[in-house]
Amino acid sequence: MTITGLDVRDVRFPTSSELDGSDAMNPDPDYSAAYLTLHTDRTHSGFGFVFTIGRGNDVQCAAIAALAPLVVGRRIDGPGDVAELSFALLHDSQLRWLGPEKGVMHMAIGAVVNAAWDLLARELGEPLWALLSSLTVDDLLAQVDFRYLTDALSPSEARDILEAAVPGRAERKARLRTDGFPAYTTSPGWLSYSDDKMVRLAGEAVAAGFAAIKLKVGGSREDDRRRLALARRAVGADFPIAIDANQRWDVAEAIDWLGELAPTNPWWIEEPTSPDDVLGHAAIRRGVAPMRVATGEHVANRVVFKQLLQAEAIDVVQIDAARVGGVNEVLAILLLAAKFGRPVCPHAGGVGLCELVQHLAMFDYVAVSGSMDGRVIEYVDHLHEHFVSPVVIRDGRYLAPEQPGFSAELSATALAEYEFPNGVNWRQKDKA
Amino acid sequence: MTITGLDVRDVRFPTSSELDGSDAMNPDPDYSAAYLTLHTDRTHSGFGFVFTIGRGNDVQCAAIAALAPLVVGRRIDGPGDVAELSFALLHDSQLRWLGPEKGVMHMAIGAVVNAAWDLLARELGEPLWALLSSLTVDDLLAQVDFRYLTDALSPSEARDILEAAVPGRAERKARLRTDGFPAYTTSPGWLSYSDDKMVRLAGEAVAAGFAAIKLKVGGSREDDRRRLALARRAVGADFPIAIDANQRWDVAEAIDWLGELAPTNPWWIEEPTSPDDVLGHAAIRRGVAPMRVATGEHVANRVVFKQLLQAEAIDVVQIDAARVGGVNEVLAILLLAAKFGRPVCPHAGGVGLCELVQHLAMFDYVAVSGSMDGRVIEYVDHLHEHFVSPVVIRDGRYLAPEQPGFSAELSATALAEYEFPNGVNWRQKDKA
Repeated sequence: MTITGLDVRDVRFPTSSELDGSDAMNPDPDYSAAYLTLHTDRTHSGFGFVFTIGRGNDVQCAAIAALAPLVVGRRIDGPGDVAELSFALLHDSQLRWLGPEKGVMHMAIGAVVNAAWDLLARELGEPLWALLSSLTVDDLLAQVDFRYLTDALSPSEARDILEAAVPGRAERKARLRTDGFPAYTTSPGWLSYSDDKMVRLAGEAVAAGFAAIKLKVGGSREDDRRRLALARRAVGADFPIAIDANQRWDVAEAIDWLGELAPTNPWWIEEPTSPDDVLGHAAIRRGVAPMRVATGEHVANRVVFKQLLQAEAIDVVQIDAARVGGVNEVLAILLLAAKFGRPVCPHAGGVGLCELVQHLAMFDYVAVSGSMDGRVIEYVDHLHEHFVSPVVIRDGRYLAPEQPGFSAELSATALAEYEFPNGVNWRQKDKA
Repeated sequence: MTITGLDVRDVRFPTSSELDGSDAMNPDPDYSAAYLTLHTDRTHSGFGFVFTIGRGNDVQCAAIAALAPLVVGRRIDGPGDVAELSFALLHDSQLRWLGPEKGVMHMAIGAVVNAAWDLLARELGEPLWALLSSLTVDDLLAQVDFRYLTDALSPSEARDILEAAVPGRAERKARLRTDGFPAYTTSPGWLSYSDDKMVRLAGEAVAAGFAAIKLKVGGSREDDRRRLALARRAVGADFPIAIDANQRWDVAEAIDWLGELAPTNPWWIEEPTSPDDVLGHAAIRRGVAPMRVATGEHVANRVVFKQLLQAEAIDVVQIDAARVGGVNEVLAILLLAAKFGRPVCPHAGGVGLCELVQHLAMFDYVAVSGSMDGRVIEYVDHLHEHFVSPVVIRDGRYLAPEQPGFSAELSATALAEYEFPNGVNWRQKDKA
């Protein structure tokens, strides 16, 4: 089929009014999506988005719109066409200057690539995780841009990893369809929640079957110690509690602060410092061992992930579905994680990130790492109602999605209510 | 004075028609500026811009425009107001998500901060380099965001560096005003120039008094060997020839390729690989020693520069005036370079980068590093005629600019001709 049009809509949810999503760096986010539709000459359209937290979502929309001349008119009939699209967008020499491979323009490329995968999966009638898990090793390798990776991962090493996972693909697909994939929840842990609300939600998370919970830290040491102690009491000595500092600290400060929190035995410390600071993460990891270090939701591209792994700076690789150059670059990162033997635990939450990353984690399990050990997908329980095919959580696990596509489509109602600034919700706010 | 308005114009020069600026990654750039004006309630306006190479300049303009609500209404009466503006823009929690501190949004912030410095310097009647060089150590320190830097550079170490350079400021200012600052030129070296043109321009550069020339490499090994040998013959055995691969290589490829070029004794190899690859640069530097390694024009922020220095990955720090968060972040990078004892040799060329970086290099000389040893500013001889106060080169050196401001203002004629898509030049192209 041929892509006949690309349109973009600025969608914003007024989450700041409830302080959902509040953390040490992001006190009042309005969770938003720069949302795009690829129109075609066939029945199906493809959907994709960049998640932002409010201001600047219009800039992100402009970046997606700027890609239209490179997208409209292309045929998408198979995975090779998506690979070609991805390379054409990443290697456009003039647009590359705006990153390279980072920030607004790179996220725009990721959203378009993801929308092309959504489109292809819909056309082929398969959920994306299953489609990706059925591709040949050659088709998968063709998606990856190995530029800047070969000192850590050569194409032949990547081939070995993928080939090693071919046996057992069918069994793992079947297991996903019966058991789903383990999840952890961040819902109890937002920094602005009262102690009582946090403790209540932590207990509910354990009862609901989640594999772990996560608490935000980094606002004040005293609050962190108190909240972690309360949470530890609520969930018991052995239940995993991850903590997340959202880039709040410098290196020495992180090591010192985490020393105070170590007695509550955090499962991992996430984003202790700048996502660009490979050497800083490595120093922190050495300084807080055996506490594990995780990062990734703000890591700009595969080159930075490569170094985080080369420098032994992280224990847990947190891919994001809307930060890097889409499924294709995520595949490169999954391969790097497999090469270095680190589990991938996707970042989610926001708008629709749970919907997207479930496909990526399940594909990783079936066709790349081949393992579910130590893997969990983040889960946050808001805004799912705005999606046509929202995630389904049962007994604290993500059920394998069965609807065709990448689960990226927003409902017509959501668009009518929350398009910014002319949706019903925002017009009413203006009047209020 | 109060900033009463911010407007942005998309300005593009059709440089691709002449293949000026062609290199191994950028075959056909249209040098462009996302150009902003800060209007005030006083006589002066402030000017700033992001340099891009064509497509996407509109996205960069949208990012600058998105900052207007955070800028308009602010007072700019002294350096402290610029520091406040810089922090407000960098620490806006919602906009930060779009980087953080990288790509389109970060460059937009840099352009606004630079425009505020331009404004203040005009109001105070001083060229920016001289204004910065006259600030107190406290005023300078207040400009720097030390977040994520303290494992390499503490505020007190920064203070020591600046205080050590206070004695002799007056002598160095006077020396700049008599002797100017040494320059090297990239004009001979574009990849699409014929051998004859390259050799002719190389000879002219030596005759004109430039301290070095630079050739683009990375297209083909055979061409690089031939061109370097020709250039070496043209300029003599001892004249410095830098080479620039514009991020073309992976690590092993860089080491191998550079081994073939080493016999012509390159002065430095610039951008051998991804600007995000700290560990890759370190490996390349070890692999090509004693050849020096330079990078910086695409380095996203001070955190990556910090690591390049910590990892001993580079010998030469190439600041850019329009890539990071403006003068304030450049100051952080100058301090890091001074701490690690590496010379700063700014990247220039493009649209107006020579005009901007001359101020930064001269300020570094007067008030930060205190040294001109091994320091040169890049010079490329096009598009200067479009600026109200273009750089002046004499005997291969930048003369110290004496006009008030940051030399960032485009002429009214340039705007009328090259604003995209409605300037005279572009309307004529449409008709042609």
